[in-house]
Parts: sequence; C-alpha cells; structure tokens
Amino acid sequence: MSSTWGDKVKISVFGQSHGAAVGVVIDGLPAGEPIDFEELQRFLDRRAPGCSPLSSPREERDVPRILSGLVNGVTCGAPLCAVLENSNIRPADYAALRDCPRPGHADYTAQLKYGGFQDTAGGGHFSGRLTAPLCVAGGIALQLLRRRGIRLAAHIASIGEIEDMPFDPMTPAATPEGELPVLDRSQRERMRALILSAAADGDSVGGVVECQVAGLAAGFGGPLFGGLEGKLASALFAIPAVKGVEFGEGFHAAKLNGSRNNDPYTVKDGAVVPASNRAGGILGGISTGLPILLRAAFKPTPSIAREQQSASFSTGAVETLRIRGRHDPCIVPRAVPVVEAVTALVILDVVLGGK
Amino acid sequence: MSSTWGDKVKISVFGQSHGAAVGVVIDGLPAGEPIDFEELQRFLDRRAPGCSPLSSPREERDVPRILSGLVNGVTCGAPLCAVLENSNIRPADYAALRDCPRPGHADYTAQLKYGGFQDTAGGGHFSGRLTAPLCVAGGIALQLLRRRGIRLAAHIASIGEIEDMPFDPMTPAATPEGELPVLDRSQRERMRALILSAAADGDSVGGVVECQVAGLAAGFGGPLFGGLEGKLASALFAIPAVKGVEFGEGFHAAKLNGSRNNDPYTVKDGAVVPASNRAGGILGGISTGLPILLRAAFKPTPSIAREQQSASFSTGAVETLRIRGRHDPCIVPRAVPVVEAVTALVILDVVLGGK
Amino acid sequence: MSSTWGDKVKISVFGQSHGAAVGVVIDGLPAGEPIDFEELQRFLDRRAPGCSPLSSPREERDVPRILSGLVNGVTCGAPLCAVLENSNIRPADYAALRDCPRPGHADYTAQLKYGGFQDTAGGGHFSGRLTAPLCVAGGIALQLLRRRGIRLAAHIASIGEIEDMPFDPMTPAATPEGELPVLDRSQRERMRALILSAAADGDSVGGVVECQVAGLAAGFGGPLFGGLEGKLASALFAIPAVKGVEFGEGFHAAKLNGSRNNDPYTVKDGAVVPASNRAGGILGGISTGLPILLRAAFKPTPSIAREQQSASFSTGAVETLRIRGRHDPCIVPRAVPVVEAVTALVILDVVLGGK
Amino acid sequence: MSSTWGDKVKISVFGQSHGAAVGVVIDGLPAGEPIDFEELQRFLDRRAPGCSPLSSPREERDVPRILSGLVNGVTCGAPLCAVLENSNIRPADYAALRDCPRPGHADYTAQLKYGGFQDTAGGGHFSGRLTAPLCVAGGIALQLLRRRGIRLAAHIASIGEIEDMPFDPMTPAATPEGELPVLDRSQRERMRALILSAAADGDSVGGVVECQVAGLAAGFGGPLFGGLEGKLASALFAIPAVKGVEFGEGFHAAKLNGSRNNDPYTVKDGAVVPASNRAGGILGGISTGLPILLRAAFKPTPSIAREQQSASFSTGAVETLRIRGRHDPCIVPRAVPVVEAVTALVILDVVLGGK
Repeated sequence: MSSTWGDKVKISVFGQSHGAAVGVVIDGLPAGEPIDFEELQRFLDRRAPGCSPLSSPREERDVPRILSGLVNGVTCGAPLCAVLENSNIRPADYAALRDCPRPGHADYTAQLKYGGFQDTAGGGHFSGRLTAPLCVAGGIALQLLRRRGIRLAAHIASIGEIEDMPFDPMTPAATPEGELPVLDRSQRERMRALILSAAADGDSVGGVVECQVAGLAAGFGGPLFGGLEGKLASALFAIPAVKGVEFGEGFHAAKLNGSRNNDPYTVKDGAVVPASNRAGGILGGISTGLPILLRAAFKPTPSIAREQQSASFSTGAVETLRIRGRHDPCIVPRAVPVVEAVTALVILDVVLGGK
Repeated sequence: MSSTWGDKVKISVFGQSHGAAVGVVIDGLPAGEPIDFEELQRFLDRRAPGCSPLSSPREERDVPRILSGLVNGVTCGAPLCAVLENSNIRPADYAALRDCPRPGHADYTAQLKYGGFQDTAGGGHFSGRLTAPLCVAGGIALQLLRRRGIRLAAHIASIGEIEDMPFDPMTPAATPEGELPVLDRSQRERMRALILSAAADGDSVGGVVECQVAGLAAGFGGPLFGGLEGKLASALFAIPAVKGVEFGEGFHAAKLNGSRNNDPYTVKDGAVVPASNRAGGILGGISTGLPILLRAAFKPTPSIAREQQSASFSTGAVETLRIRGRHDPCIVPRAVPVVEAVTALVILDVVLGGK
Repeated sequence: MSSTWGDKVKISVFGQSHGAAVGVVIDGLPAGEPIDFEELQRFLDRRAPGCSPLSSPREERDVPRILSGLVNGVTCGAPLCAVLENSNIRPADYAALRDCPRPGHADYTAQLKYGGFQDTAGGGHFSGRLTAPLCVAGGIALQLLRRRGIRLAAHIASIGEIEDMPFDPMTPAATPEGELPVLDRSQRERMRALILSAAADGDSVGGVVECQVAGLAAGFGGPLFGGLEGKLASALFAIPAVKGVEFGEGFHAAKLNGSRNNDPYTVKDGAVVPASNRAGGILGGISTGLPILLRAAFKPTPSIAREQQSASFSTGAVETLRIRGRHDPCIVPRAVPVVEAVTALVILDVVLGGK
Repeated sequence: MSSTWGDKVKISVFGQSHGAAVGVVIDGLPAGEPIDFEELQRFLDRRAPGCSPLSSPREERDVPRILSGLVNGVTCGAPLCAVLENSNIRPADYAALRDCPRPGHADYTAQLKYGGFQDTAGGGHFSGRLTAPLCVAGGIALQLLRRRGIRLAAHIASIGEIEDMPFDPMTPAATPEGELPVLDRSQRERMRALILSAAADGDSVGGVVECQVAGLAAGFGGPLFGGLEGKLASALFAIPAVKGVEFGEGFHAAKLNGSRNNDPYTVKDGAVVPASNRAGGILGGISTGLPILLRAAFKPTPSIAREQQSASFSTGAVETLRIRGRHDPCIVPRAVPVVEAVTALVILDVVLGGK
C-alpha cells in the first residue's frame, strides 16, 4: 500500500512535483464508457492553480495525455494511463530546503524515511501536485457514476472560523460555482478577505470541505472492515493536508443523546426509509439510500512566507527558515474538486464491486 | 474486504451476538512471542459488560479459548484462532425487531443488504459484541508492541459536552484506571452523572476517545494511500458507532493559521526533531517519532429504552418501537480498550511490515 | 498472504495437525444460501483417512462444528466459521523429529523460518490435515456453484506411471465413485497394486489429479495478472505436495505446432464457439465458456517408513532417520476432493466478483 | 486483480500493442538504488523483436522514458513510471480480425468480455507487446536483487520435442548468450532448424523455459497460500501463452517414489542442508536456501500464416481465416528474459516483504 489503491478499480498514482510528469494508471474501468474530455477538462480546471490571487501563482494548465485504455475516446477494458507533463518547473526554488525541513511539511519525514534520496523539489511525491492525477481519475469516475444515477457535490464548509451552511442531508445537491464554492454567498466575501489577510501576513489558513453523494442505492458496504466510512476515510486521508474525516453528524454526534441523533423511520412510496439523515447515509457501514455526507478537515498550508524555526540536518543547528516558491495561502478552494474526485473513486469502486 | 483486515498481520473476525460464539483468526504473528494470558484477560475485562450501572447488565466474562497458533503459550508462526463462546444469550429479546428496525442501528441496512437472511438477534454480526474478538487480537498486539518499545494509552476525551483534558502530545502516557478512564478526575463524576441521567431518561449519550501511540520510530507509513492516517482510520471506522476520526489538531487545525499549526524544528541530542506535536506524530502520512495522537467520535448508543418511531417492513406502516434487551447508556467507557486494540493491530501491522 | 486467500470470498485457514482443532473462516458468502450438511459430510468423507489400506490408519471423521454465519442452516451474510476438533492426536509420535527434519517435508524450512518455535507435531500447520478445513470451505463453495449452474469433477489422472484416460474436454463430467476415482476401471487395479507395493516397500508414490469445471460462462478472468490460470494456480499450489499445475494441453502444448494446438471456431446455435478445447477453457486468461481443465502434480508422500538420511540441528551430525506415525503411501486419492475444493473456492470467488 | 500485481512492490502495467505507448508503474522500490540504464537496455534488447529470422520482423527498440521515481538516476522512493512509445504500429493489419477471432488467441474472449469495445489491433492489451514493460520492471528488479546477492538465470529448456540439458540444481547458473540461449550447444542448431521449418510451413512451435534463482536465503515464503510456488505461479501465468508451471521435479515428481524424490539432509559448514535439490529450492512453500528451479510451458504462437477455420461474429458464418501481420514462429527465445523478469519481480517482492 502506498500510491496504489482500490479493489475493483485500482489506481496507481506517480510523479513528483518538479519531475518530468505526474500521472495515473486506472485499472478496472468497464469497457464501453465514453469519456467526455471537455467535461473532464472543466473539472481539472477547478483544481488548477494560477487562476486568482487566492491561489499559487504557479501556472500549469493540466491537460492529460491519454497513453492507453481508450479506443476512439471510449474505454476498451484495458488500463487507462493519463500523463500530465510538468511544464512550469522551478526546482532551484527548493535547493536550500534540502537541508532545512519546512515545518508542517513532509520534508522531515521523507528525509528520515528515504535517507536523503527523496525528491525534495516542491515536496516531490508528497506535493499537492499529485492531486492533479487524482482529479483525472476522479473526474473520469464522476462521469461513470453519473451514468449510473449517482451524483457528487462538494463545497467549502468552512475557512478558519467562517462557516458556510451545510448541504441539506435529504436532498441531492450541486457543487456551487465560482472560485470559492460556497452555498451561502454572504460568507464568500468574508472567506475571501480572510484568505487575503492571511496571505498579506505571510501566513495561511485551513478549512473544511463537505461532500455529498446522492443516488447510491441502499445495501453497499458491509460490517466491520467492510464499512463505507472506513473505505472512504482510507482514501480521503491520502489527500495531502487532511487531518480529520467525519460522516453525518460526525464529531457533533458525540455530544448528542441517542434520542436526538437517531434517525426515525417512516414510509415513503410503500418503502421503509429514514425520516432524517443524521447518519450521513451510512448505518452499520452500509448505505441507507439517502445521500452520503462527509467532511474532511484540511490543515492550513504549511508553506508560509513568514520566518519559521527549523534546523539543519547537516550541521545540527537551529536555523531560521524563509520559504521561497509559490504556495496557496489556503488550499481549501482547490481541495473541493479533489475531495469530489477521491470520493468518486471510492464510490465507483464500491458500485462496481457490487452489493 | 469485510470482516478481514491487514497486510502483514491479517485478522478475520467472526460471530454473531447471540450465536454460538464470536472469535478471531490472527494470521501473521511472528513465531516465538509468549502471550501473557493474565494480562490479556485484564485487558478483555476492561471491555466486558456487567461491571457497573454504567453498562449493559448482560454478564459475559470473555475468556478466550485458543484453538491454534500457540505451542506452550508461545506463538508458533501459524494462525492463532481465539473463540469466545456466547454463554448468556437471549435471542427472544429480539424477535419483534425483525420487522421493525431500530433507529440508528444496522437493522435497517442489514435487511436491505441481506434480504431478511441476516441474523437479527442482538444486531448479529453488527453487534458491539464483535469488539470482544477485536480486543483479543488487539490485546495480543499490545504485548508484541510493548516488547518492541511501543506503548499505547487511551482515555475518554469527552462524554456529551463534558471534556477531559487531552494527553500531553510530547510525552508517553498511560491509560487511566477505573470504570471511567479520564485524566482529569474532577470531570469523572460529571461524566458519571450525565450517563446515569441519560439512562434514567431511557436515553443514551455519545463521546470521544483519544488514543496515543508512543515509541513508534520515525519513518513508518508513506505518501498518498500509504499514509498512517488512512490506514488507522480504515480500521477505526470498523468499530461500531464511530462517525469521525482525527489526528493531532484534527478538525481544530482547520481553524488555525499555518504559523500557529506548524510544528517548528529544534535539535535534541544532535538530531533534528519537532519542537511541538500539533501534527499528532504524522507528517506526509509518515511517523515523525513523536507520539501519534488520534481521536475517534462515538455516536450515542442507538438502542434506547424510550419510544421511537419506526416502521414495519411487512405491513409498510409506521410503528412506535419500544426496545427491550440490555444496552449501554454510553458505549464510550467500554470503547476505550477497543480503540486501543484496533490501533494496536494497525501499528503492529505497520511495524512488522517494515519501513 | 499466508493462510488467508481470496478477493470476494476470503478464507482464513487455521490449526495444526495435532493441536486442539483445525478450521476455517469464510468471509463473503452471499446471504440466503442453504447449506446441505449431509452432502457436505459426504464430500468431507471422501478426504477422510482411515477408510482403507490405501490411506493413513489415523481415524478422524471430520464433522465440522459451525460457530457462525448461519441462521437455521442458511447463510446470513456474516462470516462462517467451521471448526474440526482434532480428536485422535498422538503428538508423542513426533517428539524425535524435532531435531532431525524429515526429507521432503516442511520440517526443515519451518525450523529455519520459525527458529524452533513452530509446532512440529505431525507437521503442525504444514500438515495435510489442513486440507480438511479447505474441504469444508470448498464443499460449501461447490453447493453455491451448482446452484449457479457450475459443476466440478475430478479424478486421478495418474499414479506413478499408470495413467487414467483424460476427461472429455468438451463435455461436462462427474467425479468417478470409489476409493480410487478413475474413469478407466481397468487402470484402477493397477494403481491399487502400485500403491500397496510402495507401502509394502516402506515407500510412497506420487500422481496427478485432473479437475474439470463445467458451466462457467465465457468472460470471467482478465489479461495479465487477472488471468484465471494465475488465480487458480496461486490457490492450487497451496495444497501441500503440489509441484506443478497446467491447463488444457499444458506442458504438452509446448511440444505442438500452432496448427495442432489452436482451437478453430465454429458456429453453434448461432454463436461463435471453439470447436475443440485444447486451451482448457481459458484464452488470454478469460473463460471461453467451454469446460476448464487443469491438472495438479502431487509429489510422493515425503513421510516414508524406510530409513532415510537426515541430520541433527542440535549436534550437526548426519543421522539415519526412521519415521514413525501414520502416513499415506499415496496422497493422490484423498487429494482428489481437495483439488475440487480449492478449484471451487477460486471459481466461486471469480463468479461472485463478476465479469 | 488485473494488470496490477504485488504486495511490497506493486506493478501496474498499461498499454495496447498498437496504441500510443505501453508502460509500467512500479510502486515500492526502496530509495537509494542506482539504476544502470545500459544494463537495463541490454536486458530489454534480449526481448526485442526484429533481430533475426527467428522472430517477428516488427522492429521496435524499446528505450524506456522514465517519468518519475528517480533523482539523478537513483530511486527516490516514489513510484517509477516507465513509458515505451509504440513507434512502429500498423493497426490496419488487424482491421479484418475484428470480426473473425484468431484461433488460440484472446480475440475471442476479449470480444465476449468487453462486448466489442476492446482494442483489437495486434491483440491490444493481450499482446505479447505488454511483456516489454514487464521486462523494464523485471530488469530493474534484477539489479536490486543482484545487489542483495541474488542472481537469476534462464534458458530454453525445450522447443517442440528438442530438449536442452537442465540447470544443475545445486549450482548457481548464468543465462546462456545468443539468440537461442541454451546450455547444450549441440541442440541449438536443431532448435533453429525446427523453428525455421515451422515458419516455412506457415506454422509455429512451442517450448519450455527454465529459470533458476540462486542466493535466496532459506525461510522466505510460508505455508498454504503464502507459499513461494503459488506466488511465482500467479505471476508467471500472467505471461501470455504460458499454460503450465512446475517447480523442481514438477510433473516428473508425480511418477517417482518418495525414496527417489526426497532430498536427504547432510551437514555443510556445520549447518544442516539438503544434499540434493529435487524440491527445486522450496519445501512447504518456503525457500530452502538452495537454488529455486521452475519451468514455464509456452504454447505455440497462435498467430500462424496458414489458413485456419474461424467464424464471423457478425454473420454467424464459418470463415477461412488468413492472418496477416508480423508474428514470431516461436515465442520461446524472446520469452526467456520475460520469465527472468517476472520471476525477479516476485522474488524482489518476497525479499522486501521480509521473512
């Protein structure tokens, strides 16, 4: 287990931030699925940097080259390999970081694990750049899921202390448009101001992304280690900077009484269904048929402009570190499609695996 | 993936709450490890019900029978199978529930998935009873880990709104003693009162368990899907009633600035080490060498005595449900060793898998 | 990977030959499948020893106790655990072997791997006794497969140099009856005489088992590592004493010209189908719809009565070894249901995994 | 499971014969391993076609482009992606085959599995071309193994009925040089004549490859599903055209008595070791420390020039098929490095997984 994931649909992610390319192999896609590349590109563009003062000035439009897996734009049953060349690389930005690890970043643990052989430029294989191939795979998964009646949506649930309203847990949602995809437009400007203020301070800020899956039939998943929560979480924590994952009421459920948290049953069109959805669409690890709701907490971008205390591996002396390079003051807006992508991959794996 | 888990150490959990037995097969334990059964029994007793008014009155002392894997009390390299007979079963308590699912429980999704063939008595394979074999496996894992210099501790972080103090993130901890294992004794009585009050109301209450792993060297885990957070979460969500998992500052990190959340580096005994541990011992999915800190949120026990609204699968009519049977008003105290057990299994799997 | 196997249906085998019990956990059986225990017992009895002068005099009728996974004899979706108590154990037979490994047996490698902690009595976890739980799992799989229109058959293809006729590759077959299941009755007495002669010499003899799977639709399996041959072989080599596996013409195909080995196509009921079946029902790793045909080569039982040269781990001196205990002069007749069982488990896993 | 394989070192193979490229992602290579690309290229050239009248006239020198996983030619711990562009493609050769499957080829099963969406040109993902990326991965594995004292060798054991002498089972061997790597030079010309004769007849011929692994310490592998034979076989059957795999005496062992097949023990340098190696270096699924010996049987190339009977999917009529395109009259010489490559990948996975 490392950069490979999945049971029925296996993905293998490769590449380093400032190497030749990043990419992904997707093994297990059913044959006969047309891929809409314009739609895929629009999805990838939501993750791309360089589009606003809110994100890193690194400009890199991710246009995947498909090496395999398609015949005339339709999946052929063979693994699909997509490659994104790294065109706008500046490894020299990172030369000084080789010796002084950036606080909060994987530089430190990569050094201890790989003994100095790791690719340090831009975080190497630990970089947020690796979410680009995840979005290629996830963007394809989204198209297959929609064809099966399953739709995903995500939004910024919070930036710092500023909270958007949550998705309605009973109703299928759509991802809000815009650079800051939020449901409550009145919070958008407050979030923007907070991000710009952090950036002006040479600082960064974290946030939470909420994602909804609508249209998944009841009965997917299973007890114990076969549960949907565990499977989703195992993949969501693969996204760099995620430090918490919760479903339905999540951590808030821990504060409730059972009589408040339980979803009573009612009858609709002759079928027994939950009358509310505090469970987030999952009971006993198995889908209830109501929308799945999850939230992933992103820590603030560790790469900040202001001075920080680090230390030198070579001299063993404490050092003051000043990070150069191009970084997002808040990763959360660009993380919204990444959470959708990873969730879509898990749900596609689950759906193709059958009940 | 279902009731089986692990790479290097694979566990396969079986049994239903009111069937003949529950148990676990543990495959991959190294040969030559003596098992201290008195210590294991003390660990299992922490999870056992019936010891106080705070827990279910079902009395069942779990004494595992070992069918294989040991020679003279020492692991022999073959899979270890441990069986816990179910002696105190009352399946008749559950006959009426077959048709009316208990809100918040897996009854509903089990019916939709297994089409009525599931074992409904006491939740069958979805029951909290299945945490007993998890604790057998985890209790054994704890002994192997301690022999390798790794110690785990856990405590009740909160019950409802009442919070214990957190573990010191820089210092190895020990699990507090007592029926309500908390660090801040002044909160213990408040928690007890809250649980008894919920029970008196025919209700239940949720909570959070914090767990610490001390002594794991730096360098275990990996990027992306190989990260420790994802691996731990995939197993922790297998514990019934867990709805959220976080590491280090977790969801709180989403509210912080980078300058507040980053752990600066310092030098100790000539080695570069983090000077604080808001990361919870994991950066880039890889252990930093500082203690790992995680929290798991437990929803309130769904089985409550007060009347709830359900509906009948057979008649399609809304019904008022009154649950009989023996249930914990708060599962959190008994969940403390379960979180330790599952965390220990993951860490043992990681350690035996090597860096 | 060790004593655990499978994707959709996972089995975990446990136990040692002269320990308390052997058994198996089967995770992933669909709910709602009635198990015919009389039929299962007849299947297990085919593997049981003690029924004739051709097999080991150890008497042990394997009657599985089911600890979980059934409600009223019907699968409930939870893992099924079956336990076979070891009633007729004589570990003292093996005390002397601890120091002097039996040639051709796993004693030697177990000692090197487990450093003396392994269970040496009767081969411990390496014993042919472990094929009993495999047959419980496989016997259940056979019932599920038959319900899906898939039937297995197997026979002794050869003992020593004496060969039975092969299965007709185009026609569904049935396992021949009797202690020595062969198609050509004229060869049965010759095989019996050969086995008895080897036994009288304090020796043993090997052989080949052929197995056929009829009724599997075309389209299961996949290219490269997803091929049916690789999946079947990975499980068949788990049977102790198997040293070769081949499909269709197998090693004989290596001697043929393409024009002789290729199966031409014809049209039957409007569908294109192979007109012959030298491929053994598999092309490109994928089922053709014709019967699957495989052969597994069993080496002669390594435990023989005549004196052999061994050496002492403790003294480092060459020793003359004389093995006591109860052993089959030819394992092949009892291996026939084991090959069926393991093949059935693989095919069930494949079928439930879907195309 | 499909085009992805491995536990500690995972490989994901992609590409179609006449698509843009073929390639492989290798995840799990240790950091700090220099790759000798000249040596790798020499290894790849052994598999390349076009070098003699014995092989396909398709000229394609496989020079891999490395997209990731290296820093200055040394592994960095991140997945290594190698791409081989398909420069010499002639998909038009295959247009007519879309409707009439080639006997003995995967055309038929691919059509039934993928419903016409498969890439038919040159066999698509089922093509022997996919062994090129396997050789890239295996060639790298060979370098890592040699650094750990483990060496592989392989040779043509037979072509048709003509047999080379076997490797000495007790002594490390080297792969013989030349277009037809055989140990007994006197057989080389006979093999060449047989291949040229088959080619002249518009036919093909099969054969067997023997491979030896020397230097693997005792104690790797495990009982039952953890055995080395099963693991090696599961990967070897991924090579197109392999229909049988055996270890040590293999199918021949089935004809022997135990007294002839067992390897007695002796003492060497104070250690107990087998005095012979009919077991092929594996007992009870675990390495004995002596060389591992295996043989893989290759069926004759199914693509032959002479007329064959096929049938049309579209019209349902029997047709006479004449295959155009460029094909090997005997795949076995080029399969020698492929068997080495796949065996090396398995052994590296085993070694890195630890005992």
